[in-house]
Formats: sequence, C-alpha cells, structure tokens
Amino acid sequence: MQQRKAILVILDGLGDRGNPELDGLTPLQYASTPHLDSLAKRSMVGLMDPIAPGIRAGSDTSHLNLLGYNPYEVYTGRGPFEAAGLDMDLEPGDIAFRCNFSTVDENLVVLDRRAGRIKEGTHELVEAINGIKIEDVTFYVKEGVEHRAALIMRGAGLSSKVSDVDPHGTGKRIHLAKPLSKDAEKTARLLNEFVVRAHKILENHPVNIERKKNGLKPANILLPRGAGMVPHLEKFEKKYGMKGACVVGAPLIRGICKLAGMEPVDFSGATGSYDTDMRGKFEHAVKSLNTHEFVLVNIKATDIAGHDMLPRKKVEVIERIDDAIGYLMEIMPEDTVLVVTADHSTPCTVGDHSGDPVPIMLYASDARKEGKEFNEVSCARGSLRIKGSDLMNIVLNLTNRAEKFGA
Amino acid sequence: MQQRKAILVILDGLGDRGNPELDGLTPLQYASTPHLDSLAKRSMVGLMDPIAPGIRAGSDTSHLNLLGYNPYEVYTGRGPFEAAGLDMDLEPGDIAFRCNFSTVDENLVVLDRRAGRIKEGTHELVEAINGIKIEDVTFYVKEGVEHRAALIMRGAGLSSKVSDVDPHGTGKRIHLAKPLSKDAEKTARLLNEFVVRAHKILENHPVNIERKKNGLKPANILLPRGAGMVPHLEKFEKKYGMKGACVVGAPLIRGICKLAGMEPVDFSGATGSYDTDMRGKFEHAVKSLNTHEFVLVNIKATDIAGHDMLPRKKVEVIERIDDAIGYLMEIMPEDTVLVVTADHSTPCTVGDHSGDPVPIMLYASDARKEGKEFNEVSCARGSLRIKGSDLMNIVLNLTNRAEKFGA
Repeated sequence: MQQRKAILVILDGLGDRGNPELDGLTPLQYASTPHLDSLAKRSMVGLMDPIAPGIRAGSDTSHLNLLGYNPYEVYTGRGPFEAAGLDMDLEPGDIAFRCNFSTVDENLVVLDRRAGRIKEGTHELVEAINGIKIEDVTFYVKEGVEHRAALIMRGAGLSSKVSDVDPHGTGKRIHLAKPLSKDAEKTARLLNEFVVRAHKILENHPVNIERKKNGLKPANILLPRGAGMVPHLEKFEKKYGMKGACVVGAPLIRGICKLAGMEPVDFSGATGSYDTDMRGKFEHAVKSLNTHEFVLVNIKATDIAGHDMLPRKKVEVIERIDDAIGYLMEIMPEDTVLVVTADHSTPCTVGDHSGDPVPIMLYASDARKEGKEFNEVSCARGSLRIKGSDLMNIVLNLTNRAEKFGA
Repeated sequence: MQQRKAILVILDGLGDRGNPELDGLTPLQYASTPHLDSLAKRSMVGLMDPIAPGIRAGSDTSHLNLLGYNPYEVYTGRGPFEAAGLDMDLEPGDIAFRCNFSTVDENLVVLDRRAGRIKEGTHELVEAINGIKIEDVTFYVKEGVEHRAALIMRGAGLSSKVSDVDPHGTGKRIHLAKPLSKDAEKTARLLNEFVVRAHKILENHPVNIERKKNGLKPANILLPRGAGMVPHLEKFEKKYGMKGACVVGAPLIRGICKLAGMEPVDFSGATGSYDTDMRGKFEHAVKSLNTHEFVLVNIKATDIAGHDMLPRKKVEVIERIDDAIGYLMEIMPEDTVLVVTADHSTPCTVGDHSGDPVPIMLYASDARKEGKEFNEVSCARGSLRIKGSDLMNIVLNLTNRAEKFGA
C-alpha cells in the first residue's frame, strides 16, 4: 500500500448562492472553469458543511474544523491565531487580541478605524508601547500589514471573556472592554488601562506628529477585539503522521496552521488579496512536498469578492484560479492527492459568510470518477455529503495512511 | 401493515476505487451485472460508510456496526469472534485469540507462519495442548480449517491488553506478548508460558514427527494474535424482534453472528473462498426464512480478490455473484426485503481495506425505485447516504417492524 502526499486547496468563501446578475447561477456555475471541471470528472465530488448544516462558519473556526480541531473545544476568539500569524510567541494562559491602529479625536471618538490605512511607521509605534506592564500583567504588541496588529496579555488569572474595545464603526466612541464573566474583571480593567496608556504615548509619538504635519491621520490608538485564550492544539504531525506546511497570505489562517505545528511557506506573492500570485502559491506548495507530506493552500480572493458583493469580480477571480489549477496539475507529482474545496460560502448577495454548504472534490490517481462540473449544484450528485470534521479522515484514507479499525 | 422478512447480502470488500486496468472504472462499474442493475432500478439505493467517513473498517468491526452493535463499545480484538466462529464456548471475562499453527526453528524463528498450510492432524495436536492449566488460568484450544485455530484463556484478573505473539512475518523470532496496560501483566506472563509449554509438547508430537519424516513442515508452535475480551452483545432476536440466521463461511463473521445469538446455517459449499457456492448460499438463506425472519449472507470472494489486487478476478467474482442474485430473485418469497451491500471497500489498487464508502440497495415490493446501476458511482445519486449503524433501523422500517416514536 503506497502512502501518498496531499495538497489541500481552500478557496476561501468560494461557495455562493444563485445570483440575479448571473442568470440566477452561482459565480462558480457561471465561470468558465475547464481545468476544475476536468478534475471533477476524475475525482470524488460532493458537498461539505464546514461545521454543520446551516452553521455560518468563520474562516478561523472552519479551518480549525477542516484540520480536525473541534472549534467548539479550542476556539474562544480569533486573537491567538492572529498573534501566531504575526509570529508572536504564545504561552499557555495568554489572552490575545486582533487590533487595529485607528484614529480617534480628543473625546476618543473613532475618526478612522484604519488610521488612513497607514503604510509605514507602525513598527516604531509598536516599539513605544510594547512590553508595558500593569500590575502583574505584561502587554506585548506586534504590527501586521498596514493598520493591523495583535496584542498579547500575559499574567496570572486572565480570561478571554472580555468584550471588544473596538466599537466597529466610525463616529462612535471607543468601547470600554467589559467582563463577560466574573473571572474576567481583572482582564477588562487592565486592558482598558493599557488602551488609555498606549493612547497617550501614541498621541505624542514622532511618527504621528509627522503624519499630522503631512495631513495624514495619526495612528493614535490601538483598538483590541476578538479576545481569545491560547488553545492547546495537538501537533498536526503527531495527529496524522504527516509533516504539514501551509502557503497562506492571511495572518489569521497562517496563525491557525502555525499553532497546529504546520510550517508556513512565505513568499512575497502571497498577499492574501485580489492580486495574490496563484500560480506562485501552487509552485511553492509543490516544492513543499519534497519536505512535507501535507500542504494547505489558502486563496483569499474569492472571499473578498463575496464580501465586496461583486459577482462578476468573483467570476473573474475563479477563472484565474482555474488557470492556476491547470498549472498545478502540470507540475504536481503523480500520485499526489489533491483536494479542492472552500472554508465557507461568502455569497455576493449577502456580502458576508453564510451557512450554505461548499463544493468539494478529492482527486487521486485511483479516485472514483464521479463528477461532471465543479460547482455547488453539480457536485451535489457525487458521493460526498460530509462535515468539515470528516475531511482529514478522508484524506488519510485516500493517501493510504488510515489505520485499520479491526481485522 | 404486513411484517416482512429480510435477507442481508454482504459482499465482503466489494467497494473499490477507479482502476487503471479497467479504464479507470471500479470492478463493479466494469462488470456486466444485469441482475444487480435490474434490482437497483426497483430499489432504494445509495452509499454507506460502514463506520464513518474515511474510517478503514475491519470485517469484524463493520459487521458488528451493521448489526447494530457499536464496535467502539464492544470490540477489543478479533479473538472472541474467531473462537465463537469455531463453536468454542465463551464465558464473560474470557480472553480469546486467533492463532496460527506455525513452524519455528530451534531459536523460535518463524520458518512458515502456516506450517505448510497443514491439512490434517491439527485436531490431534490440539488434543495434546487443550486444557493446560497454569496457576489459576486454563487454556482452551480449538482447530479451524488448515493452520487456523483459536485460544481461550479463562481465569481471574485477565486483560485483553496484550500484544501479539505472532511476529506477522517469516524469518522473525516470535514475539513475547507484552502487557499494554498495568493490569495485563499476568495475562502476558501466563500466555508466554503457555506458548513455550505448548511448543515443547508440539515439537515432539507424533503428528509432527510423521510430518518431518515425510518432508513436511512441523506445526510445532501455536502463535496467538488479536487478543480480545468476550463482549456482551444483546441478543439479536431481543433487539429486533426477528430470529436471525447467517450463511457465512468465514469463522470471524460466523462468530460475530453466533455471539449475537444468530443461528449459523452451515453447508459444505460455503467455503469462505473463491470457490464458494453462491447459489447454494442463497438457497440456504431462502430456506432459513421458513424458521427465521432475518438472514445474513456473507460472500468473501470479492474481498479476497481485492487483497490479491486482481481487478479482473474481482470482476469475474462479481459477475458470478450477479448470476446468483438473479437466481435468488427467482426463489425468494414475494415481499421479502433484500439488502445488497458490503462491509467495506477493498480496492485492488490498495490490496487492503480502505475507508471508501460502499454501495447499498434495499429492495422491497413497494420500495421507491431510485437506482440505475448498482455501483459506487451510480448509487451516489440515490437517497441513502448513511452510516453502518443506520442500517438495521432502515431494515426494521422496510420490513414494517419499526416502532412508532410518538403519535
């Protein structure tokens, strides 16, 4: 029994609903996708509920579930994954937050949640507020791309049950973090104190004085949201007997893979945006198969088009993905198992994640040949009608790595 | 509501993958199966995960699950089912093993795991070692066909958590049984002592002296494996209100049925091998319907072809089964429910069990007519997408025997 390697391609937010602008078809039905369709004809196909029927998954909870980590057990908020995605070191008991550098006025009313999409200077700003200690709790901050950052609180007796400081809109005063359970009072109190202290430092920081001088919005506050407790994830390699790698632009997904012990493969073309280098991603994935048995590739652009409610843009993105899949089939070693699916639907009619199931196909040289076209409707005629938590068992089976239960 | 009787035909290891020798089709897709296809057109059809998606089932764990006994609760190893299949009496607390009569040299290195597939004399060998008592534990042995045998340990404080003595290969020294948990130390120690004591007796047994004289390999050791604790299975008749029978060649499956309180219908044509008399099996099944409400028929030949990695042989076996199914439809009483499915896939490209789902069809005179052809791909379009543990509930429903839940 020859053990195989696998590539898991997650087309973020690919699933959609019938769109009036596309004759009532989904973008995936509407798009011309000769390579995906050809692959479907040689694959097991079907539909997958990323978590369960009708459940609206986040990208984080879905990726966790697809990788075999029950999000109802390990997920308390996005913070730890964002922090891990920025390569911050996390320790058990840490509480982590996703943050924005934002612009507030003197009454702490938000003028711009993204501080004019600040491009430069956040590293200097972070240096001024990183390592602040209040009582026995230390605050660690790290910047991401543009206005993005992550925050870690490290100390005794902390809880993730605190509400967001980010008011999630302009023209609103920042919120006070509120304890959502009794044991979160300390966490909320110290977090609020940190936000105010950091605000005073940022307000007068040379980077912001310079920005104001140049008519740019100052990044004068850090707004935490998505509090989460660092979970313990059993290492992917131990769990599945495969060394895992990931080619992922988005820090949130990169962080999930990192916390699972998978190795991120970074390259400048992986932008996590419309302009991401899809062929480049697959090239790096195939290269990773030399040293790893399992590679996850995430392409975010489909999700962005769904959030932007642009069905024709989503069609265009899908057709670019189709071209890259054709390229992948050329360069992929024979006898690789290739899975193509999504982490959730992001219908252009909704502009956000939905609980609709997503199409899935699993190609192997000896796969049952079930499909006709790769889309939400055609795939429903295939054999797979699974949950996200089934996926890794099916991958282990098709890569001939599953353990037999019984004789 | 007229209650019906049912025949469950389990084509062992029938499911397969796309095979390059068969134009990428599965053996079942490739084979000419007019009777199975005709039945599919009058049946509910679909796919079944014997245990759960991707899980590689053994024949034992799958049969248990199909009959409604959760293998995660009742299965600790194949031993008890093998012993029951040889009509050994089992008591609660017994630990049982599957064994081979094997040939070892003076250093206990295995020369032949099957002692030259010994045909005669094992009954005499067994008589010399049956009933040995070490401390408070008695060892019972019984021979099966050829080199096969089973062993029971009966006494206080025994555990099934011991590793195999059988090294599973020639040229290897026999293993010492190791305790896999603290409370298994006594079991391992006494088992090892029994193996050595029995070896000394077998080595000098007249049957083996005669074999050596004739240039045959002596069956000079008994190698236990697959330790299991005798499970308590609620009697099939009590559970389902149907008296159950089985027409089964393989002792392992026969033992499962016996421990579930089903009555084995034995006849010499049921060989559990390629040459099994398929029409004869169905004749005996139909005859059993006079005294029983439920009959399980297992045909092993499909599984053997899968293990042997012979796709064309598997096609040929399937075509013989198709002929026998045509015969069954002729002789079966009207209004019998007929289920045709498999316990797991044994793809010829893999040479072992896999976790791929299996096709299933349920025929009744008033069944929904869903199918086109009986194979892994066509059945995917039917209504059934079930787990093995759903099967008996569906049988109870179609036989009009299910209890109503509610008003």
